[in-house]
Parts: sequence; structure tokens; C-alpha cells
Amino acid sequence: MSFRDRLAGRAEAIDAYLDDKLPRDGRVALTDAMRHAAGGGKRLRGFLVLESAALFGLPVAAALPAAGAIEAIHAYSLVHDDLPSMDDDDLRRGLPTVHVKWDEATAVLAGDALQSFAFGLLASEAAHPDPAVRVALIASLAKAAGAEGMVLGQALDIAAETAGRALGLDEITALQAGKTGALIGWAAEAGAVLAGEDPAPLGRYAAALGLAFQIADDILDVEGDETKTGKRLGKDEGAGKATFVSHLGLDGAKARAAALVAEAEAALDGFGDRGEILRDAARFVIEREL
Amino acid sequence: MSFRDRLAGRAEAIDAYLDDKLPRDGRVALTDAMRHAAGGGKRLRGFLVLESAALFGLPVAAALPAAGAIEAIHAYSLVHDDLPSMDDDDLRRGLPTVHVKWDEATAVLAGDALQSFAFGLLASEAAHPDPAVRVALIASLAKAAGAEGMVLGQALDIAAETAGRALGLDEITALQAGKTGALIGWAAEAGAVLAGEDPAPLGRYAAALGLAFQIADDILDVEGDETKTGKRLGKDEGAGKATFVSHLGLDGAKARAAALVAEAEAALDGFGDRGEILRDAARFVIEREL
Repeated sequence: MSFRDRLAGRAEAIDAYLDDKLPRDGRVALTDAMRHAAGGGKRLRGFLVLESAALFGLPVAAALPAAGAIEAIHAYSLVHDDLPSMDDDDLRRGLPTVHVKWDEATAVLAGDALQSFAFGLLASEAAHPDPAVRVALIASLAKAAGAEGMVLGQALDIAAETAGRALGLDEITALQAGKTGALIGWAAEAGAVLAGEDPAPLGRYAAALGLAFQIADDILDVEGDETKTGKRLGKDEGAGKATFVSHLGLDGAKARAAALVAEAEAALDGFGDRGEILRDAARFVIEREL
Repeated sequence: MSFRDRLAGRAEAIDAYLDDKLPRDGRVALTDAMRHAAGGGKRLRGFLVLESAALFGLPVAAALPAAGAIEAIHAYSLVHDDLPSMDDDDLRRGLPTVHVKWDEATAVLAGDALQSFAFGLLASEAAHPDPAVRVALIASLAKAAGAEGMVLGQALDIAAETAGRALGLDEITALQAGKTGALIGWAAEAGAVLAGEDPAPLGRYAAALGLAFQIADDILDVEGDETKTGKRLGKDEGAGKATFVSHLGLDGAKARAAALVAEAEAALDGFGDRGEILRDAARFVIEREL
């Protein structure tokens, strides 16, 4: 099976799981908006959960709640980031963003409810038979998603924009470690946590992968095709924003991303051939396919 | 000790706990905004956690993480509800709301991070030595806060406003059961969950208390004093919004609230004198002191 087929298969399993678990309430736009927000996407984070679990022999069903949870957190962050007061985006995954399709209040609430939903999934018995494992996943997700992780990254981004100051390379790296890296790290480590194994090698893999992913995203913003990515491009340059590309140049950024992918691959050496799918994922990230 | 002194003492303990646990990061407005949002207030929900725990002999320290968590969730909901796209309030607890003092993006992010923070508190070992108890509190809080609880209540409220339709009494009751009732219910039951006891009597107490609280809030919106309540009043009538007062009249609403307080008190009969503080809390709710 090709990597692309495997990725699509995992995404399908996650879609079906979320469709089954997300609430439905005909009285309000809220639950439709949550489903709209949580739908689609390549499910990279959920894929990492399922594949890191598979590394330790765990079946898909055992890792789906954690995969669904991280995708729900990611979806909530996109809905809020797209708000007019934040990045003001009207297009996401090829569809109108939640505040465009409904309104801002619904977008705020749908994001809020998706965050609660994610923690609810991890707290459910289906997430893991041992409550100590569930609570470990919840503690690490709260940290990765909140004011020391993803939200901090977004706040650093806004602070730089508000100050009208171009960030240095170290600052962009720190910002991205929060904004994208924290959730990717949680996702890759989740399989090891579910299996009761050491998450450190997957943590190193994810740190390199997450940064490569963000550099690829910056490259995509310059070179990409909106019809393929399903989101608005060229925004960073238009806004005069410092990116990996503005610092390193297009070729420099590509070289740095390639080095990070090699680093991510090497972190999985201990897993031998079993690590091949996650190594493929790292390579795909810079081939712009993720 | 008077009830008011006891309430103030509990609030002080919760304030100190949150001040100790909330993050601080000088690079961003985020953490100051979280502290601003989570500061002040009478801490009714946290008080209910601490006092329901005390019913079963648990010390304050054993219940503070749960009390802090519910206050953090409540604070996040206020920050988001106050946004221009929602209730558009500029004053809260006598101070400018987060989006007025900073900006909308910071308000969205501070609310988001407060929600993650709340789940993080409950996942920490300090919340309870048994992970099964922690995970039970997290599962019930996710439900109470999300698309079947508090956020649903807010969405129902917005749906009614958008449709320009005045709600019937049953609909307002359902709306408030979500918007205010769900968190109050979680708070009152938390003490029993922490103690490993049956939460049902506290659930009945909280259901009556929560509704009484909301009716009192509607009465306050008509009769209250902004300098005492620290928030804008008269908004419902100005907006032509259906409330318990518009349905039942001022006297009818007062009579209904009083009956609910009696119901809340009766739910605690099994606790004898130990239930007196929570009974006092129910009485205070309609005396406009909470």
C-alpha cells in the first residue's frame, strides 16, 4: 500500500470516528458548525497518533479516541485562528470558514465546544482501560494546547504583528514550537503513552517533523496553489511577516527542512523497519503532500 | 462565622490558589489577560466545590484544584461571552472586560487557554490521588462545559436572539440549565465525587439552586445596582428578551425563586446540620448576595 493510500485510510477511520462521536442538536447551529470545523483535512496529527500506536502493536481502535481528540483540538484552533480578530481567513480546507458560513459567535462557541469534546474523548473509557494513562494524556494535552503550548505560539505571533516587529529566526522557531509543534509532539508521543512505552524517541522525531512541517508551510505560502491547499496563500509576504523563507531564502528553507526530515528519520532508528511509515510521513511533509 | 465571612474566606483561598497556578509569560499579554479574567468574583462555583467536599470531611486543600478548575472554566466562558460578537459587554466584576482592556484576539486566546488550564488542573495529581477520580471529574466537566452543557445553553440563547423569537418558559429553563446550571451542578457534585460518595442529593440541590440563581439574576437585571454588581444591567429588557421576570412578573419570579431555594434546602435533609452552609448559600442566592 502506498503511503498516500495508508494516510487516506487512516483519515477515513478518523472521519468516521468523529462523525459517530460528535454531538448533534437540531435546535442550534453549534453542532453543525462543530462538524463542519472538524471535517476534512489530511489528519496528519491523528495519523501520527495511529501510527505511533501501531509501532507498538496497538490496533487502530485502541488509538482512535486519542486521534479524534487531537484532531478536535486542532479543529478548534483553526476555527478560532480564522476569526476576523485573529487571522481573518474565509477559506479553510477548500470550504468557507465557520464564521463565514455561520457567524462569529457560532465560531467562538463551536471552537470552545470542540475543546471540551476533545478532553471528553480522552476521559472516556474507550481511550484506554487504565485511568492513569487517560489522565496522563489529558495532562500532556492540556499543556500542549494551552498557554505554554499552542495558544502561547498564537499569542507570540499576534504580539509580533501588533508590535509591527519582524521576528528573528530563534523567535520564529520558538513561536512555531508552540503553534504547530506542541500538538504534533503530543500526537507522535501518544502511541507510546498508550502502549506504556518510552515516548522520548517519538518526541525527538516530532520536534524535527513539526519544525520541518512549519518550514514547508512557509514555502507553500510562497510557492503553493490555493486550489490544491484549500486555503489562502501569499498572506505572509503580503503582510510583510518574517518567516523561515524570509530569513533563510527559498533554497535555504528547503535545505533546512530536508535536514530536519533526516533528523526525524534518524530518531526512529531504534524501531528498524517498523518505523518506515513514520519516516515516510516525515518525507511527505516537505514534498508538500501533507 | 457569618456566611459572608465564610464565603469571603473561601474566595480568598481560591484566589491564592489560582494566582499560584496560573502561568506567567512576560512576552505576551495572554497570561496577564488570563489572570485578569480569572480574578475577582464571589467564587460561588468554587465555594460549592469546597463546601460540598467539606460535607464529607475533606479539607480545603483536597478540593482546591477542582474549585480552581471550575472557576477557570467559568472565567473562560465570561471572557468569550463578553466578546463583541456575543453579548458585547465592556464591564465585568467592576473592571473592563478582556477585549476592552486588551483586544479581541487576546480575549479569544485567554479564554481558550483558561479552558485548557482547567482540565490540566483536574489532571494533576494534586486534584485527587486516584486517577480514576480525576478522570471522572474531567469527563463530567467536559460534558457540563461543552456542547451538551454550558456552550449549548449559550448557543440556544444566541439562536433565540438571531431568530428574534421570545422563548417560552420551558425553553428558558432548558437554556439556563445549560448556561448556568451545568457548571453549578458539576461544582456541587464534585465534593461527593472527590469523597467517593453518592453525588445525587447534591445534584438535586444544585439543579434547584442553579435555576434559583438564574431567576435571581433576571430579577437583578431589573432591580439591581451596577455599582454593586460590577456589570451592566437592564440589558434584557432593553433587548426585549424573554426572561423569568417577563414570563412570571417580578413577584411571580421572586415566589418561584423562593420555592426553588426551599427545594434546594430540602435536598440536603440527609446531611442534617452539616448541610447548613450549603443551605445558607441557597438562601443567599435569592437575597442577591451571590
